[in-house]
Amino acid sequence: MESQIKSLDDLIQSLKQLPGIGQRSAQKLALSIIHMPKVKVQNIADNLIKVKSKVHLCRRCFNLTEMDECQICSDPGRDKNLLCVVEQPLDLWNLEKARIYNGIYHVLHGHLNPLDSIGPDELFIPQLLDRLKTEAFTEVILATNPTIEGETTAMYLRQAITKIKPNLKISRLARGLSTGSDIEYVDPLTLKNAFDNRR
Amino acid sequence: MESQIKSLDDLIQSLKQLPGIGQRSAQKLALSIIHMPKVKVQNIADNLIKVKSKVHLCRRCFNLTEMDECQICSDPGRDKNLLCVVEQPLDLWNLEKARIYNGIYHVLHGHLNPLDSIGPDELFIPQLLDRLKTEAFTEVILATNPTIEGETTAMYLRQAITKIKPNLKISRLARGLSTGSDIEYVDPLTLKNAFDNRR
Repeated sequence: MESQIKSLDDLIQSLKQLPGIGQRSAQKLALSIIHMPKVKVQNIADNLIKVKSKVHLCRRCFNLTEMDECQICSDPGRDKNLLCVVEQPLDLWNLEKARIYNGIYHVLHGHLNPLDSIGPDELFIPQLLDRLKTEAFTEVILATNPTIEGETTAMYLRQAITKIKPNLKISRLARGLSTGSDIEYVDPLTLKNAFDNRR
Repeated sequence: MESQIKSLDDLIQSLKQLPGIGQRSAQKLALSIIHMPKVKVQNIADNLIKVKSKVHLCRRCFNLTEMDECQICSDPGRDKNLLCVVEQPLDLWNLEKARIYNGIYHVLHGHLNPLDSIGPDELFIPQLLDRLKTEAFTEVILATNPTIEGETTAMYLRQAITKIKPNLKISRLARGLSTGSDIEYVDPLTLKNAFDNRR
């Protein structure tokens, strides 16, 4: 279903290249542009260009930043002996929002996934292993997701890290019931974890 | 949850002004920009500006167009005696895609909704009534949606049109079973329509 209006069809086509935007959403977004004030549309366009030109990866932890090193790596108040490994910047932001952790991070930008040909070299795993050789950590927290891919990635990392630093403490985030969850609806694996790790 | 990166937060804020884009979707979209080739991001930005500056409403039927009159209004092959009234350009596009109608259109750009203070003057209803005075139609098809708001709009239009042109034929699209639907799951109102209009 095309609009037969060239500029609109061009916009729909380009919006469809964004993840999670299908034909239908692209159409709705493109149509909404027509009813928006020109200054707001210009603003979105400017911000797109600005992000693309300004934001890059922190050379140390691969978090997003507009600087050479990210705000966390360059903060003297952070504990440089604690390293937390996450899959995505969004995971890091959510941990930061919770204000529960004062160490530094390493962002993998994904998880191992052999079906999609995502091996260690497609992620920032070689860079993580390099950091273990040059920086002095007392603990590495593997905060990958509690999914099959996240667990696989954590398992791989544990082996690779142990090879380099056999005595380094390696941990995983605890598994159990989420706050506010209803035991009636909790999945069996979470229940098993909650029982096994009960205290 | 903010990224603490100014250009990225600015982009997230501006994307949230699009309909159907919440905090979460805006974050995911903004992050995907970072991993896209620069030329594609530039392309999206250019297309946004182009649509905003080029696309406007057809002065006759209020369909979207880059010209003065839209492709349908200016097509000599279309039957100018048949008028189909739709809520949105997307409805028009879908009717066009089906290739079942060769008349012209009038796009209301919404439906009556007293709760949101959308009255006839917020839609292109005055312009529709003007067209009925100056153009010679043999039939007006009220193709608003089969929803409460769409039916209300059709009912209002039927009364308003009858006042101006008491003998003009006014029709609604037929109601009944959708092709491929399973009677087991069809809602009662649709079943009633399917029975009442059986042939």
